[in-house]
Amino acid sequence: MPDAFDLDARLASDSHFVADGPLSQLRLIDDTRFPWLVLVPRLAGASEWLDLPGDAQRLLLAEINQAGRLLRASGRCDKINIGALGNIVRQLHVHVVARVEGDSAWPGPVWGWGSMQRFGNEARDARLAELREKLSWERT
Amino acid sequence: MPDAFDLDARLASDSHFVADGPLSQLRLIDDTRFPWLVLVPRLAGASEWLDLPGDAQRLLLAEINQAGRLLRASGRCDKINIGALGNIVRQLHVHVVARVEGDSAWPGPVWGWGSMQRFGNEARDARLAELREKLSWERT
Repeated sequence: MPDAFDLDARLASDSHFVADGPLSQLRLIDDTRFPWLVLVPRLAGASEWLDLPGDAQRLLLAEINQAGRLLRASGRCDKINIGALGNIVRQLHVHVVARVEGDSAWPGPVWGWGSMQRFGNEARDARLAELREKLSWERT
Repeated sequence: MPDAFDLDARLASDSHFVADGPLSQLRLIDDTRFPWLVLVPRLAGASEWLDLPGDAQRLLLAEINQAGRLLRASGRCDKINIGALGNIVRQLHVHVVARVEGDSAWPGPVWGWGSMQRFGNEARDARLAELREKLSWERT
């Protein structure tokens, strides 16, 4: 099935493609301060999780589980933060963030906190490769 | 089945019981700034959504849907914000918040923003009664 959706320009600029799940693009937020993934369902016009059909909701839930396990498998993680806000970018996207006690936003939320510290090219590529490798491992 | 869980003291102090869902207590956050519900699964020791068994995850998802519909039915709602953070209170709880463009935290998250403005007794009782009435209506 062709993807009928267009990725929001801000999401595209602030994150990097990791892999396609059954429903969503899994993307890495371009911010070295936090291990931070985002799931973007490939559904044109989707804005609220609530308004997805039940089967899509359950797929998204399974992808959130996988994203959380991936974060746990790839570094320290004292708490997983899950958030679907969308006040700024209306395209439906769900954040899955690994929080570490004492990280720069701790114990507050990461959303809207301070300024992104973007990856350099090499660090970004290494991080994406690591995530893809561990994601494959999760699937087996 | 008796509830084996104890509600966290901070959650108990910051919110009011609305109703019991199949899995969770539905509670109203004691803050007049935002229409703000929280779901607290009645599971002793639960902290991460990720670690719930699949059937409990799906029940929680259904309760989130119901909480979101309830907020929509009871006032203006430009965007639903859903969050499972737990950096401060580790007992698993999921926030479901009705956001209105231009509300006092807009477009940032409500968590950790400013100071709670608690309900007076009468306003609280009226709000709880309204929510329970609309919740019953939703169930029919």
